Amino acid sequence: MQPTSLKVPTTSSNPTLRKFEEWYDKNVEAIHQDFFSFLRIPSISADPAHREDIYKAAHWVKDYLQKSGLNAELWETSAYPVVFANKMVAKDRPTVLFYGHYDVQPVDPLNLWKSPPFEPTVRGQEVYARGACDDKGQCFYAMTALRAFIEMCEKVQINIKVFVEGEEESGSRGSVEIAQKRAEELKADHLLIVDLGIPAPGVPAITMGLRGITTMEVTVRNSNIDLHSGVHGGTVLNPNRALVTALSQLWDAQGKVAVPGFYDKVAMPSKEEQKIFDQTFDEAGVRKNFGIRAFKPEPGFSLWESNFLRPTMEINGISGGYAGEGFKTVIPSVACAKISCRLVPNQDPDEVAELVARYLRSLFPPELEVQVKLDHGGNPHRSSPSSPIAQICAAAYEEVFEKPCQRLLCGGSVPITSVLAQATGAEVAMIGVGLDTDDFHAPNEHFGLDRLRQGFLTIGRILAKVNVL
Amino acid sequence: MQPTSLKVPTTSSNPTLRKFEEWYDKNVEAIHQDFFSFLRIPSISADPAHREDIYKAAHWVKDYLQKSGLNAELWETSAYPVVFANKMVAKDRPTVLFYGHYDVQPVDPLNLWKSPPFEPTVRGQEVYARGACDDKGQCFYAMTALRAFIEMCEKVQINIKVFVEGEEESGSRGSVEIAQKRAEELKADHLLIVDLGIPAPGVPAITMGLRGITTMEVTVRNSNIDLHSGVHGGTVLNPNRALVTALSQLWDAQGKVAVPGFYDKVAMPSKEEQKIFDQTFDEAGVRKNFGIRAFKPEPGFSLWESNFLRPTMEINGISGGYAGEGFKTVIPSVACAKISCRLVPNQDPDEVAELVARYLRSLFPPELEVQVKLDHGGNPHRSSPSSPIAQICAAAYEEVFEKPCQRLLCGGSVPITSVLAQATGAEVAMIGVGLDTDDFHAPNEHFGLDRLRQGFLTIGRILAKVNVL
Repeated sequence: MQPTSLKVPTTSSNPTLRKFEEWYDKNVEAIHQDFFSFLRIPSISADPAHREDIYKAAHWVKDYLQKSGLNAELWETSAYPVVFANKMVAKDRPTVLFYGHYDVQPVDPLNLWKSPPFEPTVRGQEVYARGACDDKGQCFYAMTALRAFIEMCEKVQINIKVFVEGEEESGSRGSVEIAQKRAEELKADHLLIVDLGIPAPGVPAITMGLRGITTMEVTVRNSNIDLHSGVHGGTVLNPNRALVTALSQLWDAQGKVAVPGFYDKVAMPSKEEQKIFDQTFDEAGVRKNFGIRAFKPEPGFSLWESNFLRPTMEINGISGGYAGEGFKTVIPSVACAKISCRLVPNQDPDEVAELVARYLRSLFPPELEVQVKLDHGGNPHRSSPSSPIAQICAAAYEEVFEKPCQRLLCGGSVPITSVLAQATGAEVAMIGVGLDTDDFHAPNEHFGLDRLRQGFLTIGRILAKVNVL
Repeated sequence: MQPTSLKVPTTSSNPTLRKFEEWYDKNVEAIHQDFFSFLRIPSISADPAHREDIYKAAHWVKDYLQKSGLNAELWETSAYPVVFANKMVAKDRPTVLFYGHYDVQPVDPLNLWKSPPFEPTVRGQEVYARGACDDKGQCFYAMTALRAFIEMCEKVQINIKVFVEGEEESGSRGSVEIAQKRAEELKADHLLIVDLGIPAPGVPAITMGLRGITTMEVTVRNSNIDLHSGVHGGTVLNPNRALVTALSQLWDAQGKVAVPGFYDKVAMPSKEEQKIFDQTFDEAGVRKNFGIRAFKPEPGFSLWESNFLRPTMEINGISGGYAGEGFKTVIPSVACAKISCRLVPNQDPDEVAELVARYLRSLFPPELEVQVKLDHGGNPHRSSPSSPIAQICAAAYEEVFEKPCQRLLCGGSVPITSVLAQATGAEVAMIGVGLDTDDFHAPNEHFGLDRLRQGFLTIGRILAKVNVL
């Protein structure tokens, strides 16, 4: 479904922007209070112990959207519910679908947090809390912009749909199923994925590409119980040893991923095509911001290429035996590792998972009990920088930030993006005001209250622009 | 100091053994109650959170020895106290020193315990609890035998000393210091290390050798904080990858330890010398008892040799990133591993630790922050099977078990053994009635109540035999 008559509006209607600014500033205390109450819900989707909190967050989002003038409901899935909301005005008018997620990452190591992860704490301009940026912060300003738009707009003449899921941080399995099943209700012209970022404070950007992902867990067992490393040392094969020996062979001596066929389907853009991206890899900045001691790009590729155009192999977690305080001289019965690969066009998550799993299994002595359990996956996604919605977003960003809008790629994954793009038939724009330094997925995640306002204004301007198309 | 007149008594004084049997059976309920109250104290020396429990256990031992007719006191050390007790009768009479430990291993993984580790639970003949065997069980029957001996003996004409430490499971650092410092008070003719085992139920044995040990922890850091594996994947070197790559190089392609110089000082007994040991490696039995799928002896050596005569390299624990429920796509800032080596004559723990640490450091890219922290160590020990005390122990075992006493080596380590041997000047006999299947150092540790009685009887007979020397 393509919008019937679509023109990109001319730039800057400053009066409109001022209206949004005034609305925000008048309501700023209530906005912050609402935001903090959202952040207080520990909706960690990876941990089954937080099931109730997930539902609490879903209901919070539903109520907020309902109060903002949309019809909101929970779509139950095989996992956690999607909050779906809409406001339909006319079939022949453009439809915008917003995407966000209300679930958050786990919080450990908890001892590294300077304030409790679910007690939002403002230090300077920043609010510290798990989800402050990813994605409660971004989700929240988008919903608040919808509220302001519906409240202020003299004639809403676009159809609005909202899809907020609760398992982005744990694979989106149920959300993907429901998006495919209820594709008809999700049909849209423009899809705004509000879960991305900007390269630096004050520098606007839209994201043209995400990497895909495939994840798995490998578990290796030798004995039925943990063994004494003195009594049995020298006789049994220690699963920790088998695991490190196998994992070390995931890369060849040069540092390329050694899985046979891993790179076969990788499609690289030409140097010419790469020029549309304004991005560079700020090695010194990244080194400083994250205290990085050692970079390790893929051999033969720059850091930028390795970050955005090339697939990866990472050991996200490893455990086996006693790793607590002191020492325990044990030969553990099992050891395990969690592994993920980021994927680029035209790699297929299931295909790569199968290649990696098969290779991994071949790296262990056959007597050991080895289990490779595939976890979640998601396709890579690329958007066109010349689509109408991409141009509208860029124009809105430039008005709010008063700077040229950059075009970026993102090394991360939002697995549902390609699913929603296909289910809805919409053009995709991936936007947001997150910063790499927001420590999302790490202790002390934070988000600037100034960026909360900027995000709000940008979404407000996008809505106003689409409304007069 | 050698005993003045030492003769090995002729075998079997059955009346004496019967006296001990009657004493035990009359007091069996109180004995079990006392034992269980000892087991209830969670004296985990590896975990600083259990400091108070350690002291509680030390006082328990002191009180028990005091009530048994010895003068008992706590010797404070730089770590946890040693309980020292004695009963001195005459300078010209033989002195026997008993060694045991009141601390226990950590209990995790707690979820695998069928009953709480510090609530002793009897199922069949076995009592299940952390420490049931190692070493509270063995320590307890030895102390009870001392009580019975002092109570029943018409004329105690040996000097008795007892040294029960509280940090055997965490390196014995403070105990070693105090043993060296108060060597004069520990002087003895015979040293009984009551922390060893027998090869099968009903088969008596004394242990002629222990391996030494050296332990360390390696920590590798790249970034200051955990990173998002999408945003940063492909650019930074993941510490998990650096760690598995380094650890996998601890062994060469054949499976020998690859640390330069590691085997240099190893002294192997000749095939002729090996004949004094009655031991074989029961591959089928070990496979069945522990559910072992893969054996991996040192290339060129049998399982028995690898178990007892050769040094080892084990990764006792490994951790990095997220290993909990679900998935967290993180590049951790740090990864770490705990490593131990078992040592044989004539390897030196400090020397081997330095070789391993130096080699390990060389396996990481120099930009990474790598820390190798040496933990505890202990010398290997070998006793003579022809010493008077070894012969007395063998004779006592044979009376109680009515079977020939075997001579064994043990793959494990009791780091303080060689220190006490040197400090006291005593001949060492390493004894006990533990079984490899007692799951010490694992969940569901247990000990047979029948063996508690056999251990008691054996110690009782040893005391009676030394008394009439």
